Amino acid sequence: MRFTSEQRLDNGVLVREFTLGEIPGTLWTPASAEPAPLILMAHNGGLHRRESRLVGRARQAASRGYAVAAIDAPGHGDRPRSADDDAARAEFRRAMRAGEPADELFEAFVGPLVGKTVPEWRTTLDALLELPGIGGSVGYSGWTAVGVRLAATDPRVRAAVFFAGGYVPRAQHEEARRVTVPLLLLLQWDDEGNPRERALDLFDAFGSEEKTLHANVGGHAGTPWFEVDDGERFFARHLS
Amino acid sequence: MRFTSEQRLDNGVLVREFTLGEIPGTLWTPASAEPAPLILMAHNGGLHRRESRLVGRARQAASRGYAVAAIDAPGHGDRPRSADDDAARAEFRRAMRAGEPADELFEAFVGPLVGKTVPEWRTTLDALLELPGIGGSVGYSGWTAVGVRLAATDPRVRAAVFFAGGYVPRAQHEEARRVTVPLLLLLQWDDEGNPRERALDLFDAFGSEEKTLHANVGGHAGTPWFEVDDGERFFARHLS
Repeated sequence: MRFTSEQRLDNGVLVREFTLGEIPGTLWTPASAEPAPLILMAHNGGLHRRESRLVGRARQAASRGYAVAAIDAPGHGDRPRSADDDAARAEFRRAMRAGEPADELFEAFVGPLVGKTVPEWRTTLDALLELPGIGGSVGYSGWTAVGVRLAATDPRVRAAVFFAGGYVPRAQHEEARRVTVPLLLLLQWDDEGNPRERALDLFDAFGSEEKTLHANVGGHAGTPWFEVDDGERFFARHLS
Repeated sequence: MRFTSEQRLDNGVLVREFTLGEIPGTLWTPASAEPAPLILMAHNGGLHRRESRLVGRARQAASRGYAVAAIDAPGHGDRPRSADDDAARAEFRRAMRAGEPADELFEAFVGPLVGKTVPEWRTTLDALLELPGIGGSVGYSGWTAVGVRLAATDPRVRAAVFFAGGYVPRAQHEEARRVTVPLLLLLQWDDEGNPRERALDLFDAFGSEEKTLHANVGGHAGTPWFEVDDGERFFARHLS
């Protein structure tokens, strides 16, 4: 892990850009000298890790004592996008807008992306846990499909907040049964691209003894601000 | 409203039993001299208002600055139960346990009970708002079927936390469309008597611009303790 820039915010939070092989990322660490629990904040949808809502959530969590890491998955943010990826994404969006069946397009596009991204998060986690100032307890927040596989296979992940579970390929619902950590699933009730029934089926599939669903009215980007606080209280209960 | 007993708890909360005509109730008021927002804490299922979990929630809310009122609806707690009520309730429970269709039995039993209970809450609210120490903002918490009708018809109710929406008669889903206050619906995911699909349909029906669903694993009485705190934060956002 090579740090390429460093900035100290007014509230004492340290923001460092890093690269790890091909993977570009950002690490926010709190001002306190105590080892901080770590939140892996994952995003998809072609977003950049410097997108303002993601950055706002990361900064708030860091200001409250968590180390937070974000990486750009293949085809996201700073990373090259192949013409094939762009074409597949465009075709999926076109089919959704047209109200055509998009499941197969979606799974053909997202399945391989999840397959490439999960090992990158695992490699990133290996490197982060070597750093001074990062404590042992790890939480995951964000992109559900990647988080399901990571939580099902990596025992270092101790609690997870998932967003928009309707976008998880059906094939991964079996993996969800092997997720047993406490989890909070966020659902936007009127998120057209994120089928409600599919998110509810995923919630049902999870093997966790403590699992909570929070659904709110509104579209994909309309999650109310109080859910950010609820997510932090969830992590406060589960990450020491 | 006639107070029949009065007790001061160690934390300063004043607990008063009252009667209002035939209606027996309990009022918890905080130690502070400031006018307190009021939470109407309603229960059904034949429970007594002195049931320990209800009392625990009421005391906690009062210790945090809310006035809380509970009344025993017809056939509940201190009030007489008719042989007809008992027979209807027993028949409904038997049908549920046997996995027989119980919808008609349920609606025949609960519909009239809701019809009798809502005016009693309204009368109680009239009397409570005359008392010194009770402020203007009113929230509702608990029994969904009664709360839906009250929130749909009484503009004094400004926010509502509903529990177990699967028990609301289908006929009331139309009333739910007229509920427009912020609301939080709690659903126990594995509550056999409280059909999940019916609760989700009810959530969908509410007319509120801010509505949130919290679902947790477990049966009817297994709501996790952190939902009590979440409910209080919900009221803190909406009751001044």
